[in-house]
Amino acid sequence: MPDQIDLARLRELLDGPWAKVRNAHRDHLDERFLPVYGETGDQARERITRLLGELPAELGMASAFPTEYGGKSDVGASIIASEMLAQVDLSLMVKAGVQWGLFGGAVAALGTRRHHDAHLRDIVSGKIFGCFAMTETGHGSDVQQLRTTCTYDPRTRTFDLHTPHEAARKDYIGNAARDGRMAVVFAQLITNGQWHGVHAWLVPIRDAQGNPLPGVRIGDAGPKAGLLGVDNGRLTFDHVQVPRDMLLDRYGQVAQDGTYSSQIENDSRRFFTMLGTLVRGRVSVGGAASAATKSALTIAVRYGDIRRQFGTPDAEREVLLNDYLAHQRKLLPALATTYALHFAQTELVAALSEVQGGDGPVDDHRQRELESRAAGLKAAQTWHATRTIQMCREACGGAGYLAENRLPSLKADTDVFTTFEGDNTVLLQLVAKGLLTGYRDEFGSLDGWGRASFVAEQVREMVLERTAARSVIERLISAVPGRDEEVAVTDRGWQLKTFEDRERHLLDGAVRRLRNGAATKKDQPFDIFNDVQDHVLTVAAAHIDRVTLEAFVAGIEDTADPAVRALLCRVCDLYALSVIEANKGWFLEHGRFTPARSKAITGVVNGLLKELRPHLRTLVDGFAIPDTWLHAAILREEPRRQEAMAAQAAAGDPQAALP
Amino acid sequence: MPDQIDLARLRELLDGPWAKVRNAHRDHLDERFLPVYGETGDQARERITRLLGELPAELGMASAFPTEYGGKSDVGASIIASEMLAQVDLSLMVKAGVQWGLFGGAVAALGTRRHHDAHLRDIVSGKIFGCFAMTETGHGSDVQQLRTTCTYDPRTRTFDLHTPHEAARKDYIGNAARDGRMAVVFAQLITNGQWHGVHAWLVPIRDAQGNPLPGVRIGDAGPKAGLLGVDNGRLTFDHVQVPRDMLLDRYGQVAQDGTYSSQIENDSRRFFTMLGTLVRGRVSVGGAASAATKSALTIAVRYGDIRRQFGTPDAEREVLLNDYLAHQRKLLPALATTYALHFAQTELVAALSEVQGGDGPVDDHRQRELESRAAGLKAAQTWHATRTIQMCREACGGAGYLAENRLPSLKADTDVFTTFEGDNTVLLQLVAKGLLTGYRDEFGSLDGWGRASFVAEQVREMVLERTAARSVIERLISAVPGRDEEVAVTDRGWQLKTFEDRERHLLDGAVRRLRNGAATKKDQPFDIFNDVQDHVLTVAAAHIDRVTLEAFVAGIEDTADPAVRALLCRVCDLYALSVIEANKGWFLEHGRFTPARSKAITGVVNGLLKELRPHLRTLVDGFAIPDTWLHAAILREEPRRQEAMAAQAAAGDPQAALP
Repeated sequence: MPDQIDLARLRELLDGPWAKVRNAHRDHLDERFLPVYGETGDQARERITRLLGELPAELGMASAFPTEYGGKSDVGASIIASEMLAQVDLSLMVKAGVQWGLFGGAVAALGTRRHHDAHLRDIVSGKIFGCFAMTETGHGSDVQQLRTTCTYDPRTRTFDLHTPHEAARKDYIGNAARDGRMAVVFAQLITNGQWHGVHAWLVPIRDAQGNPLPGVRIGDAGPKAGLLGVDNGRLTFDHVQVPRDMLLDRYGQVAQDGTYSSQIENDSRRFFTMLGTLVRGRVSVGGAASAATKSALTIAVRYGDIRRQFGTPDAEREVLLNDYLAHQRKLLPALATTYALHFAQTELVAALSEVQGGDGPVDDHRQRELESRAAGLKAAQTWHATRTIQMCREACGGAGYLAENRLPSLKADTDVFTTFEGDNTVLLQLVAKGLLTGYRDEFGSLDGWGRASFVAEQVREMVLERTAARSVIERLISAVPGRDEEVAVTDRGWQLKTFEDRERHLLDGAVRRLRNGAATKKDQPFDIFNDVQDHVLTVAAAHIDRVTLEAFVAGIEDTADPAVRALLCRVCDLYALSVIEANKGWFLEHGRFTPARSKAITGVVNGLLKELRPHLRTLVDGFAIPDTWLHAAILREEPRRQEAMAAQAAAGDPQAALP
Repeated sequence: MPDQIDLARLRELLDGPWAKVRNAHRDHLDERFLPVYGETGDQARERITRLLGELPAELGMASAFPTEYGGKSDVGASIIASEMLAQVDLSLMVKAGVQWGLFGGAVAALGTRRHHDAHLRDIVSGKIFGCFAMTETGHGSDVQQLRTTCTYDPRTRTFDLHTPHEAARKDYIGNAARDGRMAVVFAQLITNGQWHGVHAWLVPIRDAQGNPLPGVRIGDAGPKAGLLGVDNGRLTFDHVQVPRDMLLDRYGQVAQDGTYSSQIENDSRRFFTMLGTLVRGRVSVGGAASAATKSALTIAVRYGDIRRQFGTPDAEREVLLNDYLAHQRKLLPALATTYALHFAQTELVAALSEVQGGDGPVDDHRQRELESRAAGLKAAQTWHATRTIQMCREACGGAGYLAENRLPSLKADTDVFTTFEGDNTVLLQLVAKGLLTGYRDEFGSLDGWGRASFVAEQVREMVLERTAARSVIERLISAVPGRDEEVAVTDRGWQLKTFEDRERHLLDGAVRRLRNGAATKKDQPFDIFNDVQDHVLTVAAAHIDRVTLEAFVAGIEDTADPAVRALLCRVCDLYALSVIEANKGWFLEHGRFTPARSKAITGVVNGLLKELRPHLRTLVDGFAIPDTWLHAAILREEPRRQEAMAAQAAAGDPQAALP
């Protein structure tokens, strides 16, 4: 392991293809944009709305829009911009995400030329604020079953948008409580007495003075656990008249006489195709969660490198927190996972950019694979964020509970990520469904789980599809000698093979159990699925672990710097072996390794912690978060405190040597 | 398993010996005392201070004080009162805990008759608010190394209390920023040029108008993650003159001429004896964490019993969240652990009451065992609270993120419990040290870890001490037939034996590794300890698991109601098997069971979930939390929403059947 790492090389690798976007944010976002601790909800909302208007034009939140409307036709840049904003202030990131990702993104993806020409320029410039009104109180996960209706009347040539009961109100809607002037509203389209499933309309909700328009009732979701600067609200529609051309009609059209047409026959398939175009939201949330995790880890690692507690007889000063094995056991595996997920996210953004950035038709299979990857990584990144930020807050002791040290807001603001833009458990199910059916029809729909016929007919033959750096991975795996027990646990090929084997075996077992269930429980379709739900979720988790490891391995290939490679190889070992260690019960149950080898892995992990300890600071410095952005008093005060103590020690105070 | 449980019997068992205290709280604390969502910090502080004065006199926060000063000489009642307040408002509980537990408790335990006569009555009545000023910015865990000094001057017959540098300021001190008039201040006692270790003084910090007294600088810790109603602050002393008789001198006295005397020779031992008298704080925090966990589980379980999502072909309505296996996998093991910890806490409170409630001298060994149990259960309960409340918030989806549904404040307010009243990792180390040394000298001190001699000399012979219901446990264990593999995994004796075996084997291994380290690394005393730190922490965790299971088994013995027993036996199975399942890697590594048996356990756990599903609501209703106290809009609104939909269905709306 090299003593010295060239930080610039490490940062270059991590910054990846959109380094310019990252640096523009680092250069332009100064302390003005940082969170203010202890604000009231109203103060936070006012400040965030104001800052949204002050975001320098060269930054990238609106990059995904076509150049002709003021964007940069660069979807990747918009995701990276989200990540960077998330390190500055998560309310700002979410508010921007609602405006340019969800609201603007829906107009762009679901609307047609006339909607674009009429509105996109104002949306991009922030002249018009908007909402993405999909979720209802009664339906958040199963959005295909939304209860709001939008019924076409050929006589008036308008739609009637209506909330039939309280559970059908739009809920948790960002930008609704205060700033939104328009909303993309999702509702069941009914015309000529026929239901055609969920579609979206562009609906004005407030007038220029900010008053709700007739028939629109606007409520406030009230105080939340975090994201105080985002004005989440509730919308109820009382027979609101919506002009015919406000239907965002890219995927379904209603003629003047009420005739419905669509190039996609099946309602369900059409709806999930529409949803699929909005995949960017999930990718942004996953990226933002990872970005916040990096901030928390940077704070905890830097604090652990200056905070001392408990003396030992063999040292003059008390011991640094980061020198304790227990502290390393907390910080380093979380840091290794953060690296792994970083590379997985980079790969995902590249894939998104390729699939959605091109002009040609989107390949169905690739699109669904992309949606699956986005769903799975979003779940992995947001759960990792919740766990890791909590750990970081605890690793900073009482200081971690004070707002001035940033961790409370990182924790509270990211917490919602595990359930918004898709509940994580539901997303894992989606991933599993894709694996089981080979991303066939109606990928996004979950209702098929209940149909026994689905299980028997659709469950695919077992083929694992490799993703990143296919050839490198295959070479590494095929180089593993036959007898596993003789291979070092740090052999990358063995690690890859072990991850792949676990996924394959779990998937195989799930297929078998579903088929058995279908054969024996024909009259209890819910039970067929429910009895194996835990198994199915484990399949998804194992799949995400595997693609994450592959992305890490591929990512290391992207640098030629030998010292950076050497360091990241150890970090990758730690990631791989931490995952294996956490799942050792499974590997032992399935005879994948002997008890002796299992115990040895714990020893190797502890050895890696020792080896990586001197590089802890380098690893967080690699994230290149500007000092100002960390915004934590414990980091600002520490140099001063150390100076003061050094001065006292020089003045002969016997206590001063131990802070 | 019985169909019908008599809820009264279940509640009677859970309420335990202090049922009267619990019911008094349930009867007297109405909506006035509930948290107000969305308050500013100032509003919360003002309200909590006011409410503290309005707590009905018949409740029990000051019960631990002697009857002659207005208390009830009932330490157990004060812990139960903490638990109950924690279900009403955690800021109120913590503020009360600072006043009557920490501050008043320190005056009672460390002071002598003259302090009691002069102050206890005013402390009990709440006429004088006070602080417990121990923690400093630089020393929170290693409080033996506090830097504040208090130096006696025989000429003036006063002490000089001084903060030598910024890191020595008192930090995170409850009641300091706003309300505290006095403080128990911990500092290094120096007299006649000799240091005698940490002692405590009763020091006025504000005058009657609330202004800081001369030499006292008071700061505000500022906004926090939670507990907005508690005014945490910072205290700095600039050569403050403290009269000689304000030394709380039960354990160490300073004569007028400055001569120091104490019945405990050794400074370190004396300090940890003093700390030991304050064990009640940890027991209260653990109890409060469990109480908040019960509130969160009650909300999530009741919501999961009304919330539906996703339809299936074999049911008219969508599926209840609680009917999904994945949801049961989240809620039920957490609920079973909550039951287990409840019984462990009950047993701990009884032991505390017995040890500290008697008039005779306290047995050293029992006192240390009590401290160890308090430390371990506090860690277990607070981590369980953090994990479980997070899970409950996610189980309620977006609704769980809204303040109106209570979960955000439960989460934010309890979060600090993992690091206050002792950082959990440090507490686990303390537990392990007690196990390794048989609770010998200086139990509370952690500095001995570094001395190689400690390891070689003090590590005890392996004897596990059983606690609760010794005879029942022994009977169950001895009834297990020889061949483990043939015993059902639901055999209670086998479960107990399995837990005990794990603890014993881990402890044995830690002893061996420490001795080996001492022999081979004589010159690196820190490494001897640090190399096995993860192992040592696992020993502590396994110990806590074992005493928790034993307490659960013993607790079931306390009811004669067959239906309640039958239900709790299944819950106890679920607790035991969940712990075993979570640690199956260890059991397989150590050949404790075969892969087949390990897999079978997962099947049995899933079977228990199915069996317990119909009793989910009963299990949370057993906690007997008044409906008002839950204070969650999702529970209040749901009956109304269901009524409205039923009305619509009756009116022929085809959508109304699915909410």
